[in-house]
Amino acid sequence: MTPDPIFASVTTIEAAAGGVTAPLGFRTGAVHCGIKPSSTALDLAVLAADGMATAAALFTTNLAQAAPVLVSQQHIERTGGRARAIVVNSGCANACTGVQGLADARTMAAETAAALGCVPEDVLVASTGVIGVALKMDRVVPGIRRAVAELSPGQGAQAARAIMTTDPFPKEHAVTVHTGRGSFRVGGMAKGSGMIEPNMATMLGFLTTDAAVPAPLLRQALQLSARDTFNAITVDGECSTNDSLFALASGAGGITIDEGTYPALVDGLLAVSRELAIGIVRGGEGATKVIAVTVAHARTIDEARQVARTIANSPLVKTAVHGADPNWGRIVAAAGRSGVRFDINRLTVHVGGTLLFEKGLPHDEAAPIAGRHLQGKTVQIDVNLGSGDAAATIWTCDLSAEYVRINGEYRT
Amino acid sequence: MTPDPIFASVTTIEAAAGGVTAPLGFRTGAVHCGIKPSSTALDLAVLAADGMATAAALFTTNLAQAAPVLVSQQHIERTGGRARAIVVNSGCANACTGVQGLADARTMAAETAAALGCVPEDVLVASTGVIGVALKMDRVVPGIRRAVAELSPGQGAQAARAIMTTDPFPKEHAVTVHTGRGSFRVGGMAKGSGMIEPNMATMLGFLTTDAAVPAPLLRQALQLSARDTFNAITVDGECSTNDSLFALASGAGGITIDEGTYPALVDGLLAVSRELAIGIVRGGEGATKVIAVTVAHARTIDEARQVARTIANSPLVKTAVHGADPNWGRIVAAAGRSGVRFDINRLTVHVGGTLLFEKGLPHDEAAPIAGRHLQGKTVQIDVNLGSGDAAATIWTCDLSAEYVRINGEYRT
Repeated sequence: MTPDPIFASVTTIEAAAGGVTAPLGFRTGAVHCGIKPSSTALDLAVLAADGMATAAALFTTNLAQAAPVLVSQQHIERTGGRARAIVVNSGCANACTGVQGLADARTMAAETAAALGCVPEDVLVASTGVIGVALKMDRVVPGIRRAVAELSPGQGAQAARAIMTTDPFPKEHAVTVHTGRGSFRVGGMAKGSGMIEPNMATMLGFLTTDAAVPAPLLRQALQLSARDTFNAITVDGECSTNDSLFALASGAGGITIDEGTYPALVDGLLAVSRELAIGIVRGGEGATKVIAVTVAHARTIDEARQVARTIANSPLVKTAVHGADPNWGRIVAAAGRSGVRFDINRLTVHVGGTLLFEKGLPHDEAAPIAGRHLQGKTVQIDVNLGSGDAAATIWTCDLSAEYVRINGEYRT
Repeated sequence: MTPDPIFASVTTIEAAAGGVTAPLGFRTGAVHCGIKPSSTALDLAVLAADGMATAAALFTTNLAQAAPVLVSQQHIERTGGRARAIVVNSGCANACTGVQGLADARTMAAETAAALGCVPEDVLVASTGVIGVALKMDRVVPGIRRAVAELSPGQGAQAARAIMTTDPFPKEHAVTVHTGRGSFRVGGMAKGSGMIEPNMATMLGFLTTDAAVPAPLLRQALQLSARDTFNAITVDGECSTNDSLFALASGAGGITIDEGTYPALVDGLLAVSRELAIGIVRGGEGATKVIAVTVAHARTIDEARQVARTIANSPLVKTAVHGADPNWGRIVAAAGRSGVRFDINRLTVHVGGTLLFEKGLPHDEAAPIAGRHLQGKTVQIDVNLGSGDAAATIWTCDLSAEYVRINGEYRT
């Protein structure tokens, strides 16, 4: 049998070592400059492309946007989607800092640009940490200079550490994408919700690729891949002043993304983003389990997501999973109050593949099997609405007494 | 100065002793019939009017409605708003029980009706407790007969106990309303969110008055008074399969509500409902504090409620209050993600009357004063959106490690 020519162009994806510096054409520098109280913790990083990269970004929908969000948004609009570098600090979110905060974020961009020899608009800015407190610019400025001086292709892991606040572990991932027309790499790093030292969760994500990608295509691919990854996770339903997701494409790998290879780019971004997003959930405050809530046979993807999100954010479902209780009742009740209409008699609920609810009635005899599944670290909840063909998955973590302890401690 | 004649008709409200049996023309019977595992706990109550009463009710918006909700809804539609009695059991929610559950709820109404000498449609039904488990009808039926046999005007407090599941205390309240045209009484009892033995929160509320109230007017007054009381509380954002709120008007007090005295009826229902609703919050699982979130200067009441509800349901705000942390940042961030548009520079946040956030900047110097307020049992959070004239208050409780412990324990 002659191989169908379509199979020659099928994409394969393999995991690669490293994070944001796995793709060619990127370097990072990470330093301790004294923003965090610890005397050694890394708290500032610069991610730079060797030449000009195309850039795309998604920002928090919170009305209270931090200064670095406002500045990055402005820069990316002015340049039409290009950037030379991103400067990030942890330990201070530069949020609710007024006019001074905006000036400080602009200074971070300008100092990075001066050290790299580009214009300030070509630098994007991100911050995470305590809100309502001014950046110590007398430490940040020399920190930026040192980070740029130390730029190196092998320092991705240090950068992933420098952006952490209370994350229990750094999150980085990379893949090589093979297409019928050549290979390219996608890398990334992220920080998750750390709310003890700062006042709220901040999600920061940084993706890189050495494919050459026109800016509009990069933006579209970033939106599409974020929908089912970074935008499909929830730790506690909160959304911060600083949430940002960046993508840079260096073009140093020699392959140019066009209509034919665009799906491969999306796949590469999806693979890295999913790993990072689930890492954020796994590192959620007080989390002991990752929960995937899949809602299938909804009328639309939006309705599937709405039901899945309501279940994933339900404190009763999250505490039940924490206690390894196969409590189908709380899942049914959360679905029932999600605002999506469905026929309760066509609803089914599976936990770990075990049927617990069907035709309006429980299958409590199966509860012990589901209970054993819930004792593991990864929990699967499946809800079938029986009303259409659309499906969606939302990832979350369990709710533990440790979450309350972390977030109930006095700030000072 | 001659008194303005308008003052002669001003309503005054004074607290009265008792609960649902404080108004004339009502009797209750409460028994232990063996639905709850305890050998003595009251678990069934009948609230009966001496003659036919007008009736109104509001039911859960959850798609998974329990059998008693379906039956009560049907009965009140068929009679056009009259009832002789309400039969309530605790210990079993009769939810997710299919065809058998519906038959059991109908039997509860029929048995009560037979004992009272009315038709089944004149009896309303409510249940709270474990879901997905069938009612033990061999215990419920004799229980109903005994409860009817024991009907007495002085047993309101026993009824308030009989409807409890894991409520830490019974909730009942009554007032006398004096109008320019005579006085009437409003009484009530409620049960709150108890999720340890059952699978979810159930809110049940029962209001009585000895005014004569036409059914449409009673329904309208109930909706209006519930909006800012029973519908303005949240323990964890959950909404159960069994939530029900009933109002019965006996007419035994001699005053008939018309257009002129309608506002006084609403005021009376509001006074009793507010006390019961705040009692539910105070008795919320693991709660140590009641939090009132007032959002003012919104464009519309709906927008004020939406912002207040987002803040009240924020796990970060609730844990911060639990830890007595005057964390304005979490309040600002919750308002910012509520979906309501406002100008962050016109937003102000007060905690316990102390200004913590204004013009985009914090007032951290005032944090210790707000921190002392947060150490009390009643917390006031005020948010001013600076965009209109509408205001709303939502009551909630703090989030403690005890909540997680209660809800994370294995069911069996």
